[in-house]
Amino acid sequence: MTIKTEKNSTALKPRHEVMPLLVDVAMGRATADLVIRNGRWVNVHSGEIIPNTDLAIVAGRFAYCGPDASHTIGENTEVVDAGGRYLVPGLCDAHMHVESGMVTVTEFCRAVIPHGTTSMFIDPHEIANVLGMEGVRLMHDEAMAQPVNVYVQMPSCVPSAPGLENAGAILGADDVAEAMTWPNIIGLGEVMNFPGVAMNDPTMVGEIAASMKAGKTIGGHYASPDLGLAFHGYVAGGPEDDHEGTRMEDAIARVRQGMKAMLRLGSAWYDVATQVKAITEEGLDPRNFILCTDDSHSGTLVNDGHMDRVVRHAIAQGLKPVTAIQMATINTAEHFGLARELGSIAPGRRADVLIVSDLATMAIDEVYARGRLLARDGRLVADIPAWDYPASAKNTVKLGKSLSPEDFDIAAPEGANSVRARVINIIENQAPTRASVAELKVENGLVTMDRGNDICQIALVERHRGTGTVVNAFVSGFGYTKDCALASTVAHDSHHMLVVGTNKRDMAIAANRLNEVGGGVVLISEGRELALVELPIAGLMSAERAEIVAEKASRLTEAMREMGCTLNNAYMQHSLLALVVIPELRISDIGLIDVTTFQKVDLFV
Amino acid sequence: MTIKTEKNSTALKPRHEVMPLLVDVAMGRATADLVIRNGRWVNVHSGEIIPNTDLAIVAGRFAYCGPDASHTIGENTEVVDAGGRYLVPGLCDAHMHVESGMVTVTEFCRAVIPHGTTSMFIDPHEIANVLGMEGVRLMHDEAMAQPVNVYVQMPSCVPSAPGLENAGAILGADDVAEAMTWPNIIGLGEVMNFPGVAMNDPTMVGEIAASMKAGKTIGGHYASPDLGLAFHGYVAGGPEDDHEGTRMEDAIARVRQGMKAMLRLGSAWYDVATQVKAITEEGLDPRNFILCTDDSHSGTLVNDGHMDRVVRHAIAQGLKPVTAIQMATINTAEHFGLARELGSIAPGRRADVLIVSDLATMAIDEVYARGRLLARDGRLVADIPAWDYPASAKNTVKLGKSLSPEDFDIAAPEGANSVRARVINIIENQAPTRASVAELKVENGLVTMDRGNDICQIALVERHRGTGTVVNAFVSGFGYTKDCALASTVAHDSHHMLVVGTNKRDMAIAANRLNEVGGGVVLISEGRELALVELPIAGLMSAERAEIVAEKASRLTEAMREMGCTLNNAYMQHSLLALVVIPELRISDIGLIDVTTFQKVDLFV
Repeated sequence: MTIKTEKNSTALKPRHEVMPLLVDVAMGRATADLVIRNGRWVNVHSGEIIPNTDLAIVAGRFAYCGPDASHTIGENTEVVDAGGRYLVPGLCDAHMHVESGMVTVTEFCRAVIPHGTTSMFIDPHEIANVLGMEGVRLMHDEAMAQPVNVYVQMPSCVPSAPGLENAGAILGADDVAEAMTWPNIIGLGEVMNFPGVAMNDPTMVGEIAASMKAGKTIGGHYASPDLGLAFHGYVAGGPEDDHEGTRMEDAIARVRQGMKAMLRLGSAWYDVATQVKAITEEGLDPRNFILCTDDSHSGTLVNDGHMDRVVRHAIAQGLKPVTAIQMATINTAEHFGLARELGSIAPGRRADVLIVSDLATMAIDEVYARGRLLARDGRLVADIPAWDYPASAKNTVKLGKSLSPEDFDIAAPEGANSVRARVINIIENQAPTRASVAELKVENGLVTMDRGNDICQIALVERHRGTGTVVNAFVSGFGYTKDCALASTVAHDSHHMLVVGTNKRDMAIAANRLNEVGGGVVLISEGRELALVELPIAGLMSAERAEIVAEKASRLTEAMREMGCTLNNAYMQHSLLALVVIPELRISDIGLIDVTTFQKVDLFV
Repeated sequence: MTIKTEKNSTALKPRHEVMPLLVDVAMGRATADLVIRNGRWVNVHSGEIIPNTDLAIVAGRFAYCGPDASHTIGENTEVVDAGGRYLVPGLCDAHMHVESGMVTVTEFCRAVIPHGTTSMFIDPHEIANVLGMEGVRLMHDEAMAQPVNVYVQMPSCVPSAPGLENAGAILGADDVAEAMTWPNIIGLGEVMNFPGVAMNDPTMVGEIAASMKAGKTIGGHYASPDLGLAFHGYVAGGPEDDHEGTRMEDAIARVRQGMKAMLRLGSAWYDVATQVKAITEEGLDPRNFILCTDDSHSGTLVNDGHMDRVVRHAIAQGLKPVTAIQMATINTAEHFGLARELGSIAPGRRADVLIVSDLATMAIDEVYARGRLLARDGRLVADIPAWDYPASAKNTVKLGKSLSPEDFDIAAPEGANSVRARVINIIENQAPTRASVAELKVENGLVTMDRGNDICQIALVERHRGTGTVVNAFVSGFGYTKDCALASTVAHDSHHMLVVGTNKRDMAIAANRLNEVGGGVVLISEGRELALVELPIAGLMSAERAEIVAEKASRLTEAMREMGCTLNNAYMQHSLLALVVIPELRISDIGLIDVTTFQKVDLFV
């Protein structure tokens, strides 16, 4: 068995250009670049598993799939003996955000290719909130350069909550129309403003119409249990898939309406097991079910896997392996209008194929993409060059000044000895927060924290335009028992800087430290830096390997525990506190936001 | 129950334009045009049948599909009570030739709409052989004017046998590229030159590449039982479906290769029962199986039905009704990239819906297309205006002269008393012919027929360019016992005039009669006209109702029997004798063609 990976390049010619060559190879008039022999063809078209199959590959595409490819083998053909193992189409992640891994597209690919992922549909929603169209284009271009298929969904909701926050950019229908002309845009990213769709919000209508006109796929995000009129209004508005379902009835409702139910298993999402029962128990046609991850942290990629993990999990719920694989291959490809290019092992398609020794556990021995061996035994074997982001993408933390502890002062009303202040309360294992009111003491005209009751300070520091704005408020639930402050430039979705601290001095140091490194996450205790994850690209991503980022993130988690925080997803909870679309109380650059009434509220009651 | 059909027009606005209105109706802020209540929703997405379903329709599209559409009903909303009957998506014919019905697109629609067909994918291959691009465009435009969805596949093989015949036109890659820019072209018509695809014939490569570049669907036609290399070469060349399979293994092979297996039930095609076993016995995933008719004579449409007949037949083979319906709705729509527009009952899609009282028998009570009632109880209730073809399309029979019996003289070699002549032999119930040699007498220097042995004369009369060419030869198998001649301007695929007769006088009269009426089929006996089907449009189609054409065709069949012809599909056999792509011996405007060697051969051995 000899394999050379240098031979094929990443560049893939369009199918219509190489078609005559495919025919020549299929007919034995030309020789294949690569022949994989004697595999068990997991055929996602017929739903069969077909033994004794040979695959002949040329120009990065399948030319022949059948019982005997001898006639395609020449002197320069590499021949791989699959030895009866399974030949599985490369796996597709139908909806995901690279930024959740805190790495670049390139490093994300490096991390997931050994797990069998060869196609990704990414929504660069986070960078778009920082850098607008420039950010989308940067990831778009990086995506195109990969040796696997990475398509981009144009972010639809930037900012997430117009009027309630100022993000780094505002994108609208004109931007969407422009993006639809870019070569690597596959559709509109999750339309999260579901009330807006049902209300015919002009921006939502314009963006969806522009995407429809371009013939692209409209991504959905209906994050509500209400399956009544609001849901029907949303569906009528055009979104074609949804990964926000959590219950079996959610999946059923979506499929009945002609949407694709995207079942999600991410680092913190566990929505496959409940919803897959629509197939395994209710007998629905599986063709409109699709698997995705949505958000994977680097640690998950490094330790648990990616789409292999999702498929394995889906099989463990009782799906036939070939059905689960269809849900991560051909179903996805068809949804995005790409079934001619990918998602199956069949002539003309890109030669993205996994050699798998056990289907139920998705034990992936080798990963080929476009006919090129990229990974073996869980390790990348191909060289994927690093991708450099321009200076403009690395200089996005603009505080406008060096912060001092006084920037976090919360002045009490004239003459007050105590105040009744609104407090954001973390709820363990849930994204929503709870709003409460606490009686807080005033000292020297400043409101104080109540560390005994786990009430510390939170600050949102404007970081896109250097306005010097600092919005101060109170938060409870982290459980910090030590003197410390955690600052982060990942603060969904506007991605300002979010600082939570038990003392103002550490808060200022943390904020300034992130300013210094261009963004990321830092934990300071008594002036000492306990953990730092540098994320210089847009303040969201590192250019380092996922393993390194995972290690740093792990160190951060550990340090947070040392400070007394025992939450399960402590850092994630921190980074969601500015997400002014999820109830009940959040913070933005314009102030405290009541996300039940969608209005700004005063800190003091 | 009040229904007005005048209200809605045929014009359908693009989905992106009416989306806000759909949302308003779904939310109850605007009222529907039509609400169908209390039906059993045959849901081709989920594979379920869902009782107690209401459908709200506005602007020709579904706005709401769910348990209660009360909120969409206003003063001007028409309300139809389905009374628990089934709501089935309008049926799609995935591949067919309107010309086989000998009527216009308009009259074809009039005939099939009562049978539940609301979408057709037509390949105007026959008119293209007569009128070239003009003919394709004429049918393209007529198709667009219909109240149902008629998409056009650009014919790929005109002429069918380059070098062996001169048709009325030659179409190539440039024509295909041009057609792909027309609004109603959905793909490339069946690529019949399957040896050419496997040999990388430049015209085939160019046409397929142009269609692929345009993102259109490539229709296939692999009419061979060989599933070896020739098949694999064809698949690698790009065709994406095939309706020429006849055996279960044909369907399986196609689906495995990522093609759609189109199972055909036409007037003379019976390919569903054998191939559907791939699903019912072998358990293949049905999603890549599609139903079609290919060729339906007017008599079949009038007496037996159209896609309702195919679905009924498929169910009778043991398919679950919802599966058979998927194969005639959503599977077809997805294949042509139209699932956002049609093929299911779901929000945003065109409101093409059948009210069906029994699924297994496909008992269709009412047919709605784009929200408009078109047929009830098997009768058209909407007004569909006739379509007028221009004079250029009605003046296509150009003989260049009036024919006389002498034009059919077959001169013997100088001084011969008898000759050994090649004879085309009809094989009952089969498309191929058999080549034989007969000893024929010579009288007055002319070879004579041998009526005692059922050997009569066949003549191909050039009719596209008025060259005056008449190619004479011998045919056996019709069984004519009387003095008669049958002439037809339907002569696949070049559609010259084909005259078969037991005497030259009747042959001349028949030919001249067709010249007079602009084409069609005529049977003359002893100078008397026994039957005539006028087909003035391109010599292929009538502008009359299908019922009238069927009646005339029935009279023709009857008259042929009176002349002694007892073949099952006598007229069809006649019209296929110039089809120089099917073995063994045929006639074209360049002479007798041996279709085993693809060469012109002499009449005398």
